[in-house]
Amino acid sequence: MKVLLGISNKHIHLTEEDYKVLFGDEPLGVVKELVQPGQFSSDKKVTIKTEKSQFDNVRLLGPLRSYTQVEVSKTDSFKLGIDPPMRNSGDLDGAAVVTIVGPLGEVTKPCCILANRHLHINHSQREELGLLDVDKVKCRIEGIKSTVFEDVYIKESEDYTLEWHLDTDDGNGSLGKTGEMVEIFK
Amino acid sequence: MKVLLGISNKHIHLTEEDYKVLFGDEPLGVVKELVQPGQFSSDKKVTIKTEKSQFDNVRLLGPLRSYTQVEVSKTDSFKLGIDPPMRNSGDLDGAAVVTIVGPLGEVTKPCCILANRHLHINHSQREELGLLDVDKVKCRIEGIKSTVFEDVYIKESEDYTLEWHLDTDDGNGSLGKTGEMVEIFK
Repeated sequence: MKVLLGISNKHIHLTEEDYKVLFGDEPLGVVKELVQPGQFSSDKKVTIKTEKSQFDNVRLLGPLRSYTQVEVSKTDSFKLGIDPPMRNSGDLDGAAVVTIVGPLGEVTKPCCILANRHLHINHSQREELGLLDVDKVKCRIEGIKSTVFEDVYIKESEDYTLEWHLDTDDGNGSLGKTGEMVEIFK
Repeated sequence: MKVLLGISNKHIHLTEEDYKVLFGDEPLGVVKELVQPGQFSSDKKVTIKTEKSQFDNVRLLGPLRSYTQVEVSKTDSFKLGIDPPMRNSGDLDGAAVVTIVGPLGEVTKPCCILANRHLHINHSQREELGLLDVDKVKCRIEGIKSTVFEDVYIKESEDYTLEWHLDTDDGNGSLGKTGEMVEIFK
């Protein structure tokens, strides 16, 4: 069976409280709807800073959430000089400390993770694909650097539609492309 | 069967002619011997520059070679704004143009590639491992992001010893570490 691939560059999610510190009362605008219903690439960017280095122009994804979270790749983390744990989105246990800089202020907190490989899916899709009995799947990107990714976590919610998310290390290493259809299996 | 993993950060090889343009008559010093016999991390660094961006402090590996070659990851290539082809070392067909800047001069030429996944091996090791009948193998890195890398090219030479080379996209995506022993299979 095949699913849609989405490769996520480093990005940030913000709480309303942290958004206000960084951007004040400026409204949060939509630049592009994402594949997951209701999620969007916003018109706001921040700088992610550590003692060692920084990334400018890191995109804020919307809408605002109940947690502030910075998602980077392992390669990004070496540049920043931090060692963030691999986590499911929203699980900030042991997250690395970074400083988020916006035009009006900054926030420093333990909120930086490596996102796990994950498959967004809703219940009926999970049932259809015969994936009710597993919590992880494998995905294969085919090409001149064909790669099988194990440890792809199933994230089920009625708000989701079928899409597999990879970070830029995994995506670029295999020469995968956002929008291509890739094979998944148990 | 298991082999030693080596993850290669972006680096450069130079011809004697190009070395002289960049460093003049300065001797090329050894900082660290590499696993492959005779190869070393040198005491020289260059800047790799394109119209879009640049990387400073890119390490020159020694000894000097019969070709000048810059090896980057796909992630690096996005930062540089170029689209280098995946190639075996020394095959610069269609290589991307970059400018190499040293303390005394600079060289601009089509010499930038994505190195293929490859396994260094000598003939007797290849025979022992039963790999005389294939030109590619698969390798698996085990961990919390377990990954099977297909399309690992066998590079046989009497100058080589058994070692599998990956770039930083593949290596960091799978959380692999230089020096670990990983499984290879046909």
